[in-house]
Amino acid sequence: MIPAEILEKIGKERHAYEKELMEFIRIPSVSADPKHANDVRKAAEWVLEKLQKMGFEGRSYETEGHPVIYAERCPYKDQQTLLIYGHYDVQPPDPVEAWKSPPFSPEIRDGYIYGRGATDDKGQFLTYLKAIEAILSESGEIPINVKFLVEGEEELGSINLVPFVKKHKKELEADAIAISDSAQFASGMPTICYGLRGITYLQLDVYGPAFDLHSGHYGGAVANPANVLVEILSRLMDNEGKILIPGFYDDVIDIEPWECKEMASLPYEEEAVKKHLCIKHLKPEKGYTPLECMKARPTLDINGIWGGYSGPGTKTIIPSKAGAKVSMRLVPDQDPEKITALFKEYVNSISPEGVTVQMTEFQKNHPVIVPRENDTIKAAFCAIQSGFGKTPVFIREGGSIGIVSDFKNVLGIENILLIGWGSPDDGAHSPNERFSLEDFNNGIKSAAALLYELKV
Amino acid sequence: MIPAEILEKIGKERHAYEKELMEFIRIPSVSADPKHANDVRKAAEWVLEKLQKMGFEGRSYETEGHPVIYAERCPYKDQQTLLIYGHYDVQPPDPVEAWKSPPFSPEIRDGYIYGRGATDDKGQFLTYLKAIEAILSESGEIPINVKFLVEGEEELGSINLVPFVKKHKKELEADAIAISDSAQFASGMPTICYGLRGITYLQLDVYGPAFDLHSGHYGGAVANPANVLVEILSRLMDNEGKILIPGFYDDVIDIEPWECKEMASLPYEEEAVKKHLCIKHLKPEKGYTPLECMKARPTLDINGIWGGYSGPGTKTIIPSKAGAKVSMRLVPDQDPEKITALFKEYVNSISPEGVTVQMTEFQKNHPVIVPRENDTIKAAFCAIQSGFGKTPVFIREGGSIGIVSDFKNVLGIENILLIGWGSPDDGAHSPNERFSLEDFNNGIKSAAALLYELKV
Repeated sequence: MIPAEILEKIGKERHAYEKELMEFIRIPSVSADPKHANDVRKAAEWVLEKLQKMGFEGRSYETEGHPVIYAERCPYKDQQTLLIYGHYDVQPPDPVEAWKSPPFSPEIRDGYIYGRGATDDKGQFLTYLKAIEAILSESGEIPINVKFLVEGEEELGSINLVPFVKKHKKELEADAIAISDSAQFASGMPTICYGLRGITYLQLDVYGPAFDLHSGHYGGAVANPANVLVEILSRLMDNEGKILIPGFYDDVIDIEPWECKEMASLPYEEEAVKKHLCIKHLKPEKGYTPLECMKARPTLDINGIWGGYSGPGTKTIIPSKAGAKVSMRLVPDQDPEKITALFKEYVNSISPEGVTVQMTEFQKNHPVIVPRENDTIKAAFCAIQSGFGKTPVFIREGGSIGIVSDFKNVLGIENILLIGWGSPDDGAHSPNERFSLEDFNNGIKSAAALLYELKV
Repeated sequence: MIPAEILEKIGKERHAYEKELMEFIRIPSVSADPKHANDVRKAAEWVLEKLQKMGFEGRSYETEGHPVIYAERCPYKDQQTLLIYGHYDVQPPDPVEAWKSPPFSPEIRDGYIYGRGATDDKGQFLTYLKAIEAILSESGEIPINVKFLVEGEEELGSINLVPFVKKHKKELEADAIAISDSAQFASGMPTICYGLRGITYLQLDVYGPAFDLHSGHYGGAVANPANVLVEILSRLMDNEGKILIPGFYDDVIDIEPWECKEMASLPYEEEAVKKHLCIKHLKPEKGYTPLECMKARPTLDINGIWGGYSGPGTKTIIPSKAGAKVSMRLVPDQDPEKITALFKEYVNSISPEGVTVQMTEFQKNHPVIVPRENDTIKAAFCAIQSGFGKTPVFIREGGSIGIVSDFKNVLGIENILLIGWGSPDDGAHSPNERFSLEDFNNGIKSAAALLYELKV
């Protein structure tokens, strides 16, 4: 049980913590954009410095991409070891014009801190640093051994973290892993997540004539790359949400009746969701509820599409090329490698003559399910009760945290705590991303409590 | 018959003419882009000044868009009157990075002048000014009455020219109209065009959630505007080139057997076209030759498409909105208003719940057929022989010149000469647009000869 004075201390320091989060958000560590490579590095250094100041031993490791931070403070031989994972990189901020305050100039409004990374994952990750700082200042030592693994490529699918984990299996040995990179089921409803969707993400480029053509001169006789792209993309999914790639559903484990029942019992307010998103209708896959679709069914989304003229007025051309980014969320037991291969095979089979279709693979993550009942989960359950003053619910998460399946497979650690402090309406990956100051502080309390609950 | 000394003069002055065309191209008169509104006006003034210097009386007329220039020199009561139409606006230059020399810094390379508008329509139109200048300098007076109508919105579908023509029917009275805004059938094969396709151009905007969403959190339950856009667009045309809008073909007059035969007899080199465009296959509508499709069949082309993330790497979002520009080339007797209505009705009927689909109408032009055999055509035939030293061929053109059907219907003038001096590989509407210096000079000679051939 966490000593009361530590919880008090965390309550008292809330403004200092908020200031520090703002400092962290101000570093525009957009991992996808090469222009921000230096900022990503700065964010890594910022994290390392914080850890070193608290007496953690570690360093920054170079990878083929952005650096990995590993640091540990392991004062005990006979205590539990918790590995805390987080990421210091963020999603691109586009469309920048949709932000009320600039994405990298954080602002506090109505009890929320706004900025890119506020919740995903700078704010949520920072709770562990602040929890340990509070514990150290009040008691002089942490109650268990703690290791930190912090990467800068989560938003790219943790491409270079997998080889790192394989290479550093010994250092990364732990009894449990804590990750706060998911969200509460709903605002004010703290959540333990026991499953994640996987993902595979590809780019399609359709090349036609060597240059844009006059659509009057050539229209009707030349394959238009934008028309062809649309034709290919339209054949990936039907209008009831069924994905048409042959073999796509072969390894999908359908949702168990008990899980459907459990999900249906959650206070999911469809009207509130529609109001928040400003849409009149949800459009779940035929035969499934919206919640089932968001948490436990595979998807296919066009994340971006482009080609030809998009300026004001008209331009009568056949564009020389067109492209799209397409991602598929995967559920157990779909294998991202297999799905990627099926996708490519299918697209090639439906690509017409007269154009060249190129496909580029980006991130690929396995879906994962973790245990729901054991001592580690119990510890997290109690810690969240201490921090939030509420009983957490259990749910699967629709997003992907690339490295989780590798932690399970490479490190052999089953006890993975997916305990997000944020809220689904925080706008992770959206403009005006935010983090509730209340959740931030309760998250710090829960993180601190977790260290005491895990103590044997 | 044109006096030999005028043809000689035109030959001698070729470098001066080329310099003047470069000056004209340097004015970036992109009518579609509001940023260039001032440049469009500058181009109008440039034209008017040239005409006034040659003793034409006229002025610039304000419209709701860009100005219209009207000027005349009518020394005769009992002579033919020729109305010369041209446009001083140009297509947007995008993608600018594809140009070898900047679009508005014209350059001469290997016998061609490169720059936006070189052929469409600055270069082709300028031939008439230079022809008249040469005639005036050699003989002191033009052989017939000449009127000029020059607009700055041809690339926008001549939106404001129609009311202008209706209002100025009296001034615009003429025996024939000459327009050099089409192209030769092939380089070195001067052409008289007797038909043009029409067009209707629309923009589709699909709106979904109020902001971009995390595709992990919401994917599967929310209609993705990019997926919906693709679904709608894919249902406009099948993969054999047949347009699926109900009623679309109702008024299409199929190509007559004699016309098919005539087209088939033209020296159309498919291999050369494919090589020029760097494509392996043409993709004509099923049942028609490429030439038939380019000249006399209706089309549906996506001219631009956009939505979501198109930067480097990945962004896992459901975009808040997506859009496309779509144009349909029309053939006799399709009515652009009717086709636009059918298009909108169909799109509305296939638009799913969960998104809002908005449609914006842009240019709409009627397809047109003009007479192939009469004295005016004979005059053009002889003039082209004088200018190019070759016998012209007859062909329909796949592009649209908005105002032609209005000239026919409003002014009641049937004798419309569509005599393009450029070449189909000049890259009108494409990067690296160009105009052969040889065609430019032969065009000036032909334009001058035309005035003598029309003399009664």
